[in-house]
Amino acid sequence: MLSKRHNDLVTAPMKLHIQPPELPFPKLREECGVFGLYGDKEAVTYTTLGLHRLQHRGQEAAGIIAFDGTDFHTHKAAGLVSEGFVAQDGQSRFNPPASMAIGHVRYSTAGGKAGLENVQPFLAHTQRGEVALAHNGNLTNAQKLRTQLMADGRTFQSTSDSEVILHLMATANDDCMVDTLKTALGQVKGAYALVMMTRKKMIGVRDPAGVRPLVLGQLGDAYVLASETCALDIIEAQYLRDIEPGEIVVVDEDGLHSYHLPHTSPHRFCIFESIYFMRPNSFFDGQYTSELREKLGTQLAKESPVEADVIAPVPDSGISAAVGFATASGIPFKNALLRSHYAGRTFIEPSDAIRHFGTKLKHSVNPAAVKGQRVVLVDDSIVRGTTIPKIVDMVRKAGAREVHVRISSPPFTHPCFYGVDTPTQKELTAHRMSLAEIEKMSGADSLAYLSIDGLYQAVSGKERNGEKRDFCDACFTGEYTLPLVDEEAKRKEG
Amino acid sequence: MLSKRHNDLVTAPMKLHIQPPELPFPKLREECGVFGLYGDKEAVTYTTLGLHRLQHRGQEAAGIIAFDGTDFHTHKAAGLVSEGFVAQDGQSRFNPPASMAIGHVRYSTAGGKAGLENVQPFLAHTQRGEVALAHNGNLTNAQKLRTQLMADGRTFQSTSDSEVILHLMATANDDCMVDTLKTALGQVKGAYALVMMTRKKMIGVRDPAGVRPLVLGQLGDAYVLASETCALDIIEAQYLRDIEPGEIVVVDEDGLHSYHLPHTSPHRFCIFESIYFMRPNSFFDGQYTSELREKLGTQLAKESPVEADVIAPVPDSGISAAVGFATASGIPFKNALLRSHYAGRTFIEPSDAIRHFGTKLKHSVNPAAVKGQRVVLVDDSIVRGTTIPKIVDMVRKAGAREVHVRISSPPFTHPCFYGVDTPTQKELTAHRMSLAEIEKMSGADSLAYLSIDGLYQAVSGKERNGEKRDFCDACFTGEYTLPLVDEEAKRKEG
Amino acid sequence: MLSKRHNDLVTAPMKLHIQPPELPFPKLREECGVFGLYGDKEAVTYTTLGLHRLQHRGQEAAGIIAFDGTDFHTHKAAGLVSEGFVAQDGQSRFNPPASMAIGHVRYSTAGGKAGLENVQPFLAHTQRGEVALAHNGNLTNAQKLRTQLMADGRTFQSTSDSEVILHLMATANDDCMVDTLKTALGQVKGAYALVMMTRKKMIGVRDPAGVRPLVLGQLGDAYVLASETCALDIIEAQYLRDIEPGEIVVVDEDGLHSYHLPHTSPHRFCIFESIYFMRPNSFFDGQYTSELREKLGTQLAKESPVEADVIAPVPDSGISAAVGFATASGIPFKNALLRSHYAGRTFIEPSDAIRHFGTKLKHSVNPAAVKGQRVVLVDDSIVRGTTIPKIVDMVRKAGAREVHVRISSPPFTHPCFYGVDTPTQKELTAHRMSLAEIEKMSGADSLAYLSIDGLYQAVSGKERNGEKRDFCDACFTGEYTLPLVDEEAKRKEG
Amino acid sequence: MLSKRHNDLVTAPMKLHIQPPELPFPKLREECGVFGLYGDKEAVTYTTLGLHRLQHRGQEAAGIIAFDGTDFHTHKAAGLVSEGFVAQDGQSRFNPPASMAIGHVRYSTAGGKAGLENVQPFLAHTQRGEVALAHNGNLTNAQKLRTQLMADGRTFQSTSDSEVILHLMATANDDCMVDTLKTALGQVKGAYALVMMTRKKMIGVRDPAGVRPLVLGQLGDAYVLASETCALDIIEAQYLRDIEPGEIVVVDEDGLHSYHLPHTSPHRFCIFESIYFMRPNSFFDGQYTSELREKLGTQLAKESPVEADVIAPVPDSGISAAVGFATASGIPFKNALLRSHYAGRTFIEPSDAIRHFGTKLKHSVNPAAVKGQRVVLVDDSIVRGTTIPKIVDMVRKAGAREVHVRISSPPFTHPCFYGVDTPTQKELTAHRMSLAEIEKMSGADSLAYLSIDGLYQAVSGKERNGEKRDFCDACFTGEYTLPLVDEEAKRKEG
Repeated sequence: MLSKRHNDLVTAPMKLHIQPPELPFPKLREECGVFGLYGDKEAVTYTTLGLHRLQHRGQEAAGIIAFDGTDFHTHKAAGLVSEGFVAQDGQSRFNPPASMAIGHVRYSTAGGKAGLENVQPFLAHTQRGEVALAHNGNLTNAQKLRTQLMADGRTFQSTSDSEVILHLMATANDDCMVDTLKTALGQVKGAYALVMMTRKKMIGVRDPAGVRPLVLGQLGDAYVLASETCALDIIEAQYLRDIEPGEIVVVDEDGLHSYHLPHTSPHRFCIFESIYFMRPNSFFDGQYTSELREKLGTQLAKESPVEADVIAPVPDSGISAAVGFATASGIPFKNALLRSHYAGRTFIEPSDAIRHFGTKLKHSVNPAAVKGQRVVLVDDSIVRGTTIPKIVDMVRKAGAREVHVRISSPPFTHPCFYGVDTPTQKELTAHRMSLAEIEKMSGADSLAYLSIDGLYQAVSGKERNGEKRDFCDACFTGEYTLPLVDEEAKRKEG
Repeated sequence: MLSKRHNDLVTAPMKLHIQPPELPFPKLREECGVFGLYGDKEAVTYTTLGLHRLQHRGQEAAGIIAFDGTDFHTHKAAGLVSEGFVAQDGQSRFNPPASMAIGHVRYSTAGGKAGLENVQPFLAHTQRGEVALAHNGNLTNAQKLRTQLMADGRTFQSTSDSEVILHLMATANDDCMVDTLKTALGQVKGAYALVMMTRKKMIGVRDPAGVRPLVLGQLGDAYVLASETCALDIIEAQYLRDIEPGEIVVVDEDGLHSYHLPHTSPHRFCIFESIYFMRPNSFFDGQYTSELREKLGTQLAKESPVEADVIAPVPDSGISAAVGFATASGIPFKNALLRSHYAGRTFIEPSDAIRHFGTKLKHSVNPAAVKGQRVVLVDDSIVRGTTIPKIVDMVRKAGAREVHVRISSPPFTHPCFYGVDTPTQKELTAHRMSLAEIEKMSGADSLAYLSIDGLYQAVSGKERNGEKRDFCDACFTGEYTLPLVDEEAKRKEG
Repeated sequence: MLSKRHNDLVTAPMKLHIQPPELPFPKLREECGVFGLYGDKEAVTYTTLGLHRLQHRGQEAAGIIAFDGTDFHTHKAAGLVSEGFVAQDGQSRFNPPASMAIGHVRYSTAGGKAGLENVQPFLAHTQRGEVALAHNGNLTNAQKLRTQLMADGRTFQSTSDSEVILHLMATANDDCMVDTLKTALGQVKGAYALVMMTRKKMIGVRDPAGVRPLVLGQLGDAYVLASETCALDIIEAQYLRDIEPGEIVVVDEDGLHSYHLPHTSPHRFCIFESIYFMRPNSFFDGQYTSELREKLGTQLAKESPVEADVIAPVPDSGISAAVGFATASGIPFKNALLRSHYAGRTFIEPSDAIRHFGTKLKHSVNPAAVKGQRVVLVDDSIVRGTTIPKIVDMVRKAGAREVHVRISSPPFTHPCFYGVDTPTQKELTAHRMSLAEIEKMSGADSLAYLSIDGLYQAVSGKERNGEKRDFCDACFTGEYTLPLVDEEAKRKEG
Repeated sequence: MLSKRHNDLVTAPMKLHIQPPELPFPKLREECGVFGLYGDKEAVTYTTLGLHRLQHRGQEAAGIIAFDGTDFHTHKAAGLVSEGFVAQDGQSRFNPPASMAIGHVRYSTAGGKAGLENVQPFLAHTQRGEVALAHNGNLTNAQKLRTQLMADGRTFQSTSDSEVILHLMATANDDCMVDTLKTALGQVKGAYALVMMTRKKMIGVRDPAGVRPLVLGQLGDAYVLASETCALDIIEAQYLRDIEPGEIVVVDEDGLHSYHLPHTSPHRFCIFESIYFMRPNSFFDGQYTSELREKLGTQLAKESPVEADVIAPVPDSGISAAVGFATASGIPFKNALLRSHYAGRTFIEPSDAIRHFGTKLKHSVNPAAVKGQRVVLVDDSIVRGTTIPKIVDMVRKAGAREVHVRISSPPFTHPCFYGVDTPTQKELTAHRMSLAEIEKMSGADSLAYLSIDGLYQAVSGKERNGEKRDFCDACFTGEYTLPLVDEEAKRKEG
């Protein structure tokens, strides 16, 4: 032995910078994505793949419950599907032999500090057997119902709003599952796209307003439910149709059955799903998301033109709108902001001196595209307003002569209570500031939003039509159609 | 335990040989160990250490729930405490700032295939706030109560028997927690040592028969509850006393309070706790376990003497009894069976040719101790009878002239329904075979058990005294004192 | 590269589908990226960040050697920098306090089955002290030199060509390091961009032909060497200049010194670096890579126009050329192929039935962009030709009316021996097939390459000028300027 | 969503306490264990098992090199064999198909800060092909030879003394491997037990003094080399004989061949191997280690009797000697110190308040065995003297009336230079202190060592016979028989 040992594997802990890898400029987080498959022995693999493709709807935790004909198998994990469900050596961490499975990805392990307690799907053991539930959306009277149920001596396993549905079902106990569901869902308010499973059936439901998306597909003899068509595509399932607002579909050994909830509502599909959440190649309500977004860009170019040399999207959310803007304006589209391909999930920022590299780990400006140019940055929305000034600054430092910002939606002024994890109203830039103030804060030479009528024009070919509108646009208008029971109770208390 | 276990975390592409590292010749598995601490800001660390020291009571999963004054924090993990609660780099995986915490280790993730669903402590949200529960023992009418509660529309989150206690408490809803507990526990039958926690209190309970152990300790101003005193020692807490059968202790900001369940029972402490489960240095019911075990060895030497040269324990369970046997017989004690110190949790057996190395990974015989000798192997019990012939064979191959087996407890003929995971009666060697057959099967030159009266003689200085006995000895006698409600219902159905 | 690679870290019980996450349609793999920093106490962190940004030049292993003033510290790991150098909890796995460090990423752990044996940097202990070496490129007479050195009784620790440089330096042992280097490098042939380190100096060298890139930057008082400027940008170092072909730069406590190798060569910078390897925003030889690639697209549109509705890049390699093509042709650019953002490193393909999902995990076509359209797919090159028919097929299945393929470089007909891991000549599509055959194999309606003169036209404004050309274009022309000593010896033997 | 999220998976870093799991009271660390197998297609598995069983000879890193008939495969890992060579799911991390393999475990990654650089076996590529080397022991003129070799232009890959053997062999280059070895080893001084491998042969060598052990075994047609017989037992290989001092055994396709090094030496087997390092059931030089150790205890009881009630070993090193002491004295043997079975590799010490729990994690005293008793603690040696006072204190606190310490070897006064990682002389308690001082420091009522003549008496039946002694006892006597070339040079410089 010639010299002393050194263990280079353990070093002092450092300041971290953890972000979901694919939201380089994170804005709003969708609450959930849901998926279910009935009738194929690879159900768990397909569900894993489907959740993987719905990962943009929730990156913080995922869960799958599968039924093998005898037992229910559950696996839940924090983090990405590709981490929590696949081991480092590429093997599946969860692969029971089952021909029925449902799954869930969620942004937030919201609902308290209880580890995986709130990760869905939930499995409830009831007098009529087990019920597994995956929920996308948010119930607006969950707290009220929960208090009532507790007063009746019931215990809750989580702090999730979704769990009340299971209790209402266990209490309802109608003769058949569809009636049970009608009874239970007749009591809840708010937004829900549900995928459920019993020992015999897979069930899909959308609330009567149809706030959250849910589609139906087919793969050989198997039926598939998913939040978006992109999750059908990955498993090569055929898209059949959207689940309608208020519809209950039941899949069992006799095939597919359709029912409707007795209570109805004007249709209020979340317009922000189309503007931001859904994948560009998801097809819903008759068109591809990217097509709709290009129209937003076209409309935006019409409303707020600018003399410029380059149209550059903020990746990836602004790409389609930027393409539309570029086409409409005749100004060249450039990939001026590059995303790192190896950003990974975490990276160290070891000292104050180099802490600010966080953003740079994920992005870099290509000076070739912007040096000496008048650049139009196109993005889909501004929520907190913390990122846009950084990007404007990066582009300027790379040599842009002018920087203009164009946003393909109206000012985001109101929080969502229907399943999107938005900041409080006070944190919303467009609530706190005037347009002039936002423009100044951004550091851009000019900044413009799409108008609310322009939005409807692009989406439907005509202006917003009051109560007859087909969308929930509360985040832009504050017109909350679905009752905010808990929220209003809270305000009264507060 | 209501159904069979399933570990969904390990998918097994190769033949593995996985065993808890420290049960080289695994026999019975204790169901659980429980721990709780109230009143020290290092509560989570202490609870982690305490569970670590109770690891022999359950190696397959562990959980801790801590309350920080505002929120409950939960962490559960399959595997050992030193793995699931400590990262590879030695950092804690779970360390919220809390001055109250309870924890649980369990052998089995029993109760279905639901991943961590059945890992305790359980946290229930009720009308009177949250209740966290850790349970050692087994309720014998849990299935019946569960069916009744479900019929009333209640949903269960697990298949564990322990969960019914939470539902009964939520339903009871008496004015104070102690009354609530009395109402709830008045309905359950079977064995339970409970450690519970609300936002204000830590509570410990032993069933009126006192089947499972629970002790009280003090650490500065903090109170500690634990299954065994060894868990007090590790954190340098002072042992105060045993919790009495039927006692409820409540710790809150006013200090320690003691109550008693209204229903009573003859005392029936599990005699197998003393024979096998508890650590040698745990002190309970007035003596150290190792002392009691030495007496068993002494009595055994008296009942079944043998001319021999060496007394060798089967490690580690037989050590104390072997010491007693050696002292009583005057035959030298030898460490003839060596345990590997690096066996680790798992090891590969890559082909049939070398599959049988599994046992050898964990043990080796020291020929120096046995070559040419007449060897007495002392162990505490024979359950399935699969291991003892292997050991006898190893010792013979290492050159022993004679091999005699002495067991420091009576024949194990009946399964336990009070919290020990025993095989079915058919799998119990002493049920299937006569003594002569067991002797032959073992390959030993002679084999003898301790008599039931000898057992009582060693433990209490007198013979077994029918109903007045202070112990549950059902595994040796089939006399199940506590009612077997679910088991009898199952037999009627079956 | 002297022999074939073997990854001993992964044993594969199931069929896996492992690919570097960001080479969705993997083509050629660059052998290495190199980085070094002298003069900042965060040298290791900066080197980690720099290697991370050079990850596209090698994904299979990375290494860093740092000098803390007393000791050399080494860390090497298979896989990505963000994995091997950063723990799951975000902490650095390697962070000795050092103000000098060099690092290396490599595609291949090539050179035998020796685990991390061939992962650079190499550290040699010599009579003049330690020398650490990181090498990008490939020596063409390494085998010959190695045989000579071995015959003299020398032992090699790896099978890497790079190790001969260290032996030649140890043997040379001139009075100063620069002379030692001149003596040593005077004996080697082929391509090398080196970053080296002794206890006192950091050294950068480019071979006289300048085949591989190397740039110099400054960060405060510290000097930085890197394969590309993108690695300077991430740490906000200022780009100073390219290292010249044949230049030796030495950084020590007296600052920066420049020397030149005595032997010279015509300049032969690898043109494929500009076409494919370098990041779009890397600046080298007077321009940004993306600018040059747009010119290739422009030239391609001029040479091989097509009537179409949509220009779609194969992401990400074809983006800049597609932009150039779209601009030149006036046909709209569309993001028709979407990359998954969560593909992760590995994913299971559990059965034959669903094995083919591998490609789909990484990509999806956006039907909105191609349905009913005449689509031009633009990519930078075709090497093995296995991917392009799959993409053409995906685009057709999504509804494209016509699919045309345009390649922004000439047919790739000859393997590289200067540091790129190309297939054998027999595996090269453009060697095996005529243009008509390739077009047919691709399934496209038409397929065209850029001409060799068009390539030079785009790059330099004029046609290829024989020996006076400034680039190595052997992969397109077979004109290997740098001698292929080992290769020719092998052919004679073979 | 009812409340805010909490990520319980990442918590603040804490102070660690990392120790090898099975050296609860770590004393001296053996440098290495070596193993090799020729002639069975499960060679890698057997080598893994063999190293696992030699783990007590080195816990910090392990390596295996296997030859599959074409290629050499290497795997090295920090930590235990059961960690570095076996994945968490129980699969082998390294299992190339090879019928020849050699392996090495080492205590220390000694020799600098170079990560796995110094982990053996080493593989050298030489003019006569590859040579793999695993070395137990320490060369005493390695530094001198290294300097000479470097002056001749040779580069070293590590700072290990063992590497010089490979360079000397490469330089020697005699006609056959045995001659090459004779030439090379003729130049080195010090202690070496070597296991080597070329493409055709496995070779074992012990230095002429025979300082370190090496044994030969057979498994079917395969030959096995191992540091101790316990590694033969685990794979059920038959022990054939010890390798003799100065012997070279070569195994190739023609079977086993034996040669001898031309230079000779008096035999000097390390007596501390028998006292402490070797496993109790290892057989060497005609007897089992445990037998010899019992004799030490017997002799110790004779030399330093004490009136007492209990003989208690310090586990595990003192067990055999305590058995001997107990038998000789007639005082009962008790397992008074219990080892934790789940200590794991690391555990947190989160604050100063509870830092001292480290020892308690690994041990607990059983008060039942010591309360009110006069206890004799038997251990094999005292090196630094830091642990014994803690144990004495623990035993007293558990209620012992008197505590006496008996050490089954003479005072350890001199460091080892032949392969044991001892402290410097200044750190050795028995060098710094008189016997009276050590007794006082220990806190024991009395403390006694075995005499040097008593040691020889126990080992050989007669007193130490000067130069004719068969053992190296330098650690007790300072009589270093093998020349300390480097050490003396260092002292001259110093």
